[in-house]
Amino acid sequence: MEKKLIGVDLGGTTAKIAILTTDGKIEEKWSVATDIEDEGSHIVRNIGDSINQKLTDLQLDNSGFYGIGMGTPGTIDYEKGTVKGAYNLNWAKTQNVAADLKAITGLDVYLDNDANIAAVGERWQGAGEGSANVFFVTLGTGVGGGIFAEGKILHGAKGAAGEIGHITVDTSEHAYDCTCGKKGCLETIASATGIVRVAKDLARTYEKGSKLKTTSEEITSKLIFELAAENDELATKVVDHICFYLGLACSHIGNMLNPEKIIIGGGVSAAGDALLKPIQAYFEGMVFPAVRESTSISIATLGNDAGVLGAAWLALPAE
Amino acid sequence: MEKKLIGVDLGGTTAKIAILTTDGKIEEKWSVATDIEDEGSHIVRNIGDSINQKLTDLQLDNSGFYGIGMGTPGTIDYEKGTVKGAYNLNWAKTQNVAADLKAITGLDVYLDNDANIAAVGERWQGAGEGSANVFFVTLGTGVGGGIFAEGKILHGAKGAAGEIGHITVDTSEHAYDCTCGKKGCLETIASATGIVRVAKDLARTYEKGSKLKTTSEEITSKLIFELAAENDELATKVVDHICFYLGLACSHIGNMLNPEKIIIGGGVSAAGDALLKPIQAYFEGMVFPAVRESTSISIATLGNDAGVLGAAWLALPAE
Repeated sequence: MEKKLIGVDLGGTTAKIAILTTDGKIEEKWSVATDIEDEGSHIVRNIGDSINQKLTDLQLDNSGFYGIGMGTPGTIDYEKGTVKGAYNLNWAKTQNVAADLKAITGLDVYLDNDANIAAVGERWQGAGEGSANVFFVTLGTGVGGGIFAEGKILHGAKGAAGEIGHITVDTSEHAYDCTCGKKGCLETIASATGIVRVAKDLARTYEKGSKLKTTSEEITSKLIFELAAENDELATKVVDHICFYLGLACSHIGNMLNPEKIIIGGGVSAAGDALLKPIQAYFEGMVFPAVRESTSISIATLGNDAGVLGAAWLALPAE
Repeated sequence: MEKKLIGVDLGGTTAKIAILTTDGKIEEKWSVATDIEDEGSHIVRNIGDSINQKLTDLQLDNSGFYGIGMGTPGTIDYEKGTVKGAYNLNWAKTQNVAADLKAITGLDVYLDNDANIAAVGERWQGAGEGSANVFFVTLGTGVGGGIFAEGKILHGAKGAAGEIGHITVDTSEHAYDCTCGKKGCLETIASATGIVRVAKDLARTYEKGSKLKTTSEEITSKLIFELAAENDELATKVVDHICFYLGLACSHIGNMLNPEKIIIGGGVSAAGDALLKPIQAYFEGMVFPAVRESTSISIATLGNDAGVLGAAWLALPAE
């Protein structure tokens, strides 16, 4: 019987775990709560025990698996298999994640960060299926990204490759301050909180009526897209404003890396075509012909499964 | 005896050819004129004959070589080893470059484009020596680039990866038109001709005296840097203006790819620190902390040898 893969997508509230075939079919999927007590020292133990228990329940043993791939927040040392600075896990200090999880399960463990495994998942089984080069952009509380190029995840000198959220898209004096310490980052405009900030700013100088100005609901990026869908002029202006900057950022990706696919995921991407179409229009105006013909943008298709899929891919043996 | 490598850097006027050791030492270096007559049909024959002649002269034969790496203008089909659209060689139609050169020399032939081999050359033996990730930016008649990431040259979907010259850096209404058909490309500002255009534009509204306005010499990028070195205020403004856009472009490279090194080469890079220092200053203001600490910018060190070195690297057997 062909060996299988285990994928773990570790987040601040739960770890999603799955058993997959080598062609990317999810056969089992479950989750364990992330217990961040005691400096997060129970997290790896809980995941390992849960995997062992599941294999026992399924009457399988670890000889039937190539290994475990795992996506994690924090800064990863790829050679040592360690993680540090994952503050939402209470992992301030260095954790021997790969070695500890291997000690519990007897399986080799491969780590990468959450944006990178989502990139790989979408590239393997989702919107980027079969593409040699994929740039994944995630629009959520923050803006992140991951790059898959010519068969590999790109990490860069300090693991910061793919950090599209911090490219400087606004060089004007009005640029917003970013949590990273500089100004004008894409994240200040196109994250879920950035979109709300843009809406409030544009509302201030908008003189006509708009539901966005009068609503008693909390202003969220979801509400802004809903109002834009109802042709609210101010909401439409907000969407256009953020899509200009996303189109500019995607044009930089296209002109510099020429991937087959730029894939947009994360919570904000639920807006679908209302987000995608204006980004595409701005993108096409700002890329040169060879890129216009060969790089396309689409919305992620795997939702929450991208993580476990991409994580499992890490454990695939080299062809 | 350890086998050697042959590197060919094919350009519109000459093909530079070299014999190298596998650790990048150039042992022989010569060139052949590029004969673009008869639709460039003599080019590959002349290079092949010249290599065969040199091996005979040196009492070597092809069994002492791993193969030939070659950098070429035009659009390359990497699987087929063909080149088309190299207009400065009169190669409008598809040329079977790899197969034809192998037929003449008996050696395997590996192709890549000129900016990519320069990137690889600088990464192997020059300013990026030993770095896992290098982005090479060439400032000449145009602005081009090449990316070496995690052991590979990145090509992208249609060979356009690295085309930093066409990222949109000016989104204002004053953006210059580019030969690529769009507006605001880095190349319109930071190529040798772009720099002169910026100088003429700024001179128009500059009300004080400046040698740049009164000189009888032809305005070139070289002259502009010379006058800036003499503290000519207008020339200094021009240099600052183009370095802002180069710093912005380099910040996009840093924030997106986090290479250990961004290397600036090409004719304009002869300006050295006068170009590098202001680019670095703008760059540091526009990258986030992890990139500021791990990505640095420097001037290329190999000059014309980057091409044959990088080309030869293509023929190195996989480790």
